[in-house]
Amino acid sequence: MQNFLYFCGQNISFMARTEISTLGEFGLIRHLTDKLPLQQPSTKKGIGDDAAVMQFGSKRTLMTTDLLLEGIHFNLEYVPLKHLGYKAVAVNLSDIYAMNGTPTQITVSLGVSARFSVEDLEELYAGMRLACEKYKVDLVGGDTSASMTGLTISITCLGIANDKDIVYRNGAKVNDLICVSGNLGTAYMGLQLLERERIAHSHQDAQPESIPAFEGREYLLERQLKPEPRQDIIDKLREAGIRPTAMMDISDGLSSEIKHICHQSNVGCAIYEDKIPIDFVAAEVAEEMNLNIVTCALNGGEDYELLFTCDLKDYEKLVGIEDVYIVGHITKPEFGTMLIGRNGEELELQAQGWQAFKS
Amino acid sequence: MQNFLYFCGQNISFMARTEISTLGEFGLIRHLTDKLPLQQPSTKKGIGDDAAVMQFGSKRTLMTTDLLLEGIHFNLEYVPLKHLGYKAVAVNLSDIYAMNGTPTQITVSLGVSARFSVEDLEELYAGMRLACEKYKVDLVGGDTSASMTGLTISITCLGIANDKDIVYRNGAKVNDLICVSGNLGTAYMGLQLLERERIAHSHQDAQPESIPAFEGREYLLERQLKPEPRQDIIDKLREAGIRPTAMMDISDGLSSEIKHICHQSNVGCAIYEDKIPIDFVAAEVAEEMNLNIVTCALNGGEDYELLFTCDLKDYEKLVGIEDVYIVGHITKPEFGTMLIGRNGEELELQAQGWQAFKS
Repeated sequence: MQNFLYFCGQNISFMARTEISTLGEFGLIRHLTDKLPLQQPSTKKGIGDDAAVMQFGSKRTLMTTDLLLEGIHFNLEYVPLKHLGYKAVAVNLSDIYAMNGTPTQITVSLGVSARFSVEDLEELYAGMRLACEKYKVDLVGGDTSASMTGLTISITCLGIANDKDIVYRNGAKVNDLICVSGNLGTAYMGLQLLERERIAHSHQDAQPESIPAFEGREYLLERQLKPEPRQDIIDKLREAGIRPTAMMDISDGLSSEIKHICHQSNVGCAIYEDKIPIDFVAAEVAEEMNLNIVTCALNGGEDYELLFTCDLKDYEKLVGIEDVYIVGHITKPEFGTMLIGRNGEELELQAQGWQAFKS
Repeated sequence: MQNFLYFCGQNISFMARTEISTLGEFGLIRHLTDKLPLQQPSTKKGIGDDAAVMQFGSKRTLMTTDLLLEGIHFNLEYVPLKHLGYKAVAVNLSDIYAMNGTPTQITVSLGVSARFSVEDLEELYAGMRLACEKYKVDLVGGDTSASMTGLTISITCLGIANDKDIVYRNGAKVNDLICVSGNLGTAYMGLQLLERERIAHSHQDAQPESIPAFEGREYLLERQLKPEPRQDIIDKLREAGIRPTAMMDISDGLSSEIKHICHQSNVGCAIYEDKIPIDFVAAEVAEEMNLNIVTCALNGGEDYELLFTCDLKDYEKLVGIEDVYIVGHITKPEFGTMLIGRNGEELELQAQGWQAFKS
């Protein structure tokens, strides 16, 4: 006990040190949680999907959580607080929809430094309130705390679903169609536009003509600043009588996400480059910035569109649904996770996703 | 749209600015959430108690969340990561027990800077795992993210309870007995010991004899570093056939918490100074440091003991329960929230609680 302080303060330097970047986000979570036994009969599915699944009644209860840190997940130099509030809620709802569930309640915890005023938090809450109203979700609790280091937002979302309706990541079967909603890479191009503008404004000597306006490109900004969870697609699939075999939302880019589905379903995939839905203006901006829009669509992230697989028998129904695109099909696992280029060339998909721990 | 960036970056300076410290934590939460309508039939109780209450089946589902920020809620100079993990889980469980519920699942989100290694996170998880095992709670999800600013821990806990068993803060009635479990001010004195030791070690010229050892005072450190949620008290009350009329856990100090119960129940209270349970060693350390141990018990916080009110008819049963102490009684609201001193003098209780936003 005499050495209590020495032990506490210095154990880090005495211990082996493995950099977190060597494991990556998913490796890290797997490493930390793989020996955690489940003890509650109400727990039906723990870590490893868009949301956890519990059974408290005849329906299932879903639960998902997200932590947003200033400087990592958002930059207040170009993200208005109202948009940030809306987005913080929207990305959690997206996880519940991606399980084919209905979000019902959220809790919000904030860490706020003295830099922020009550009016700032009103703006943030105005955005969260808007998302709650639109998607009929109740804000039922939370925690507000001082912070020494900017703004921290932690949101947890509950939802419900019938057991038979829940769609996991592990249900994809060989020959299933791979579908995405909306378009991909657009949120990333919105971020590039905002970032370019921020840098241009930070140089006092920048020529006004070197600062392109946002006119005609508002949609890209909206995709970055105010994403909408695709409740409409979930509803349309249900109306059409389609139950996806596997589903998740696209937060880290198509490459990373389809690899999750293939890994968990023990299958491979073929994604056709020319089938990936691209927004025309996003493609235009990408060309202007010397970026490959397909790379942005595969790895850009933050689109919060849905990625799902369906049985071949649903083909006719699928093509009738607006804003849903078939981008490929599920293969045997030995085929790997492949991108088929415009000239038929096969490339292994690379999950670039989460590199934030690399310094 | 041309002025998009100007608007975003500069709206703070154009707007009125109200410092958060003028509202305080509870004023702030009330201010931000008072116009939020509840839309989901499954929401039975939103913001304002230890946990939110939902109904997904025949039982009720409880939900609580806590955000812990390095430098605000913990100091890694003297808090070992394993203890921190244990405590982070324990304080959430405490909120569920304070509703008279049973915790069932948690999610854990971490923001981690490059300062931390995989081994550090293993230590943190070892503590969380220990708490989960002891209280039979499942870790079902979470989110791990890079951080530029130290360690951030956000935990959300679900629990269950029968509707008729749930105890809110608003049920205290005139003449009810006011009870607390354990002892108060002890965690605060543990913090003072750790803080004194830290400062002593930071002065290279400190004389060894000026650094008191922790021997005989381990219990104070344990109360600060590894608090236990009082599941045992909840069980004993149930076994004795006692259902408290109001209950909450003591995280911010007795003064602040009894004022919450009185405010929400629209009653007053009389707390008797000489009835407040004090640990003998804590009192000794307080005297050594020229601190008033009763003030520490009233305002120190982090004891995570239970504060509850009971009908007078339960008196005989209550006195038979080990580690439960009757500290006063509920009065009419016009009496106010009073501390009755050793000589019978009446003092208005002051809620010092959460002053962290004051700079």
